[in-house]
Amino acid sequence: MRYELYYWPGIQGRGEFVRLALEESGADYVDVARLRGRGQGVAAMLRFLDGEGGERPPFAPPFLKAGRLVIGHTANILHYLGPRLGLVSNAEATRVWAHQLQLTVTDFVAEIHDVHHPIASSLYYHQQKSEARRRAKHFTGERLPKFLGYFEQVLAANSAGRGYTIGRALSYVDLSLFQLIAGLRYAFPNTMKRQARRTAGLLALHDKVAARPNIAAYLASERRIAFNQDGIFRHYPELDG
Amino acid sequence: MRYELYYWPGIQGRGEFVRLALEESGADYVDVARLRGRGQGVAAMLRFLDGEGGERPPFAPPFLKAGRLVIGHTANILHYLGPRLGLVSNAEATRVWAHQLQLTVTDFVAEIHDVHHPIASSLYYHQQKSEARRRAKHFTGERLPKFLGYFEQVLAANSAGRGYTIGRALSYVDLSLFQLIAGLRYAFPNTMKRQARRTAGLLALHDKVAARPNIAAYLASERRIAFNQDGIFRHYPELDG
Repeated sequence: MRYELYYWPGIQGRGEFVRLALEESGADYVDVARLRGRGQGVAAMLRFLDGEGGERPPFAPPFLKAGRLVIGHTANILHYLGPRLGLVSNAEATRVWAHQLQLTVTDFVAEIHDVHHPIASSLYYHQQKSEARRRAKHFTGERLPKFLGYFEQVLAANSAGRGYTIGRALSYVDLSLFQLIAGLRYAFPNTMKRQARRTAGLLALHDKVAARPNIAAYLASERRIAFNQDGIFRHYPELDG
Repeated sequence: MRYELYYWPGIQGRGEFVRLALEESGADYVDVARLRGRGQGVAAMLRFLDGEGGERPPFAPPFLKAGRLVIGHTANILHYLGPRLGLVSNAEATRVWAHQLQLTVTDFVAEIHDVHHPIASSLYYHQQKSEARRRAKHFTGERLPKFLGYFEQVLAANSAGRGYTIGRALSYVDLSLFQLIAGLRYAFPNTMKRQARRTAGLLALHDKVAARPNIAAYLASERRIAFNQDGIFRHYPELDG
């Protein structure tokens, strides 16, 4: 099946967690809003959000069209794709656990975004800079260590080992943790240096994922959008203690 | 099966979305942290969070123990319970859609919480009151109307009708929308009065859910914790325009 991914074309954002899964597994997909053909581009995405895609409109990008199904929310998309792409076992207990971890990634991503937008997404960063500074202190001092410490604990507790999060094989959760580490290093280099010793397992996982042939090829391609100051992970030195 | 729910005992919070599903369906469950027996109470909950429950610790409450499975995240719990409690069909397309809606509820709940805690959960409200006032203006003016408008649109688009969100029968999403409306009316009475005409479908759904025998009995019981100023929905008049 050819999957259709719909997401904002200029940023990695939440869509990137889906892109990584599609790329790792070599799935047949199109990144609709980045194309310029008929029925493509951002306009095609907005038509879905306006409810023209049927009775079940998504609330926001990303969403995935898989045949007649339109699936919204990053974690929901990965939950659906996981077994189909060989990125999680079909066993219910494993799927429930993978999804649980992915929803923790979702919460972490929302907090990362709100560091630079603590008041409103509709305002620019410079309009909420003083509030962002205050929130950043708590984020880098409390929340970031708590989330990374949790994932580090999960990695360490996986007795099947081999450095992956779930069992012995790579899952979509590992791909998402790679993206988290890469993004946090871009946005908060100083904070991440201070966390290096406490996050050794996650840093090793990051490198292991980056070295996988399909991921390495993707990261070197034009399909990988560079981190930038419009995305979730933004580098404002004043927020990086 | 006797389900074990673990959540903070003094608030409705995120646990309430799970309680409503268990109560509506008459499921056999215990609310572990609210009990005082051996192996019960908050201490029992904290032991799980400390990783003593096994290799797969939840990040935060609520979590549900179902046999040997420990399931974290409200939406994940409801996704698991839904078909088992008769609160969503087993058809994949329906389950995916219900979960997608529930994840939008999750995002909305996080934004509702952050209105009174825009800087850090570890600070008191009075320590971030000026930032909260600023965020509240955007929340009541932009975000609340956007989320409620979306759910109203979803209700209206459900051609199977009867006032429920999905098909012809009550689902756990309807129970969650009931809770959202009840909570928002407690926290933002003025804003919700202004929204009344635009949210007629949701208000009717709220009343329909409240009148269901099991829900009515639950709401009148001691098991229903009252809204209070420690939960997600808090009534601070200065945040209610």
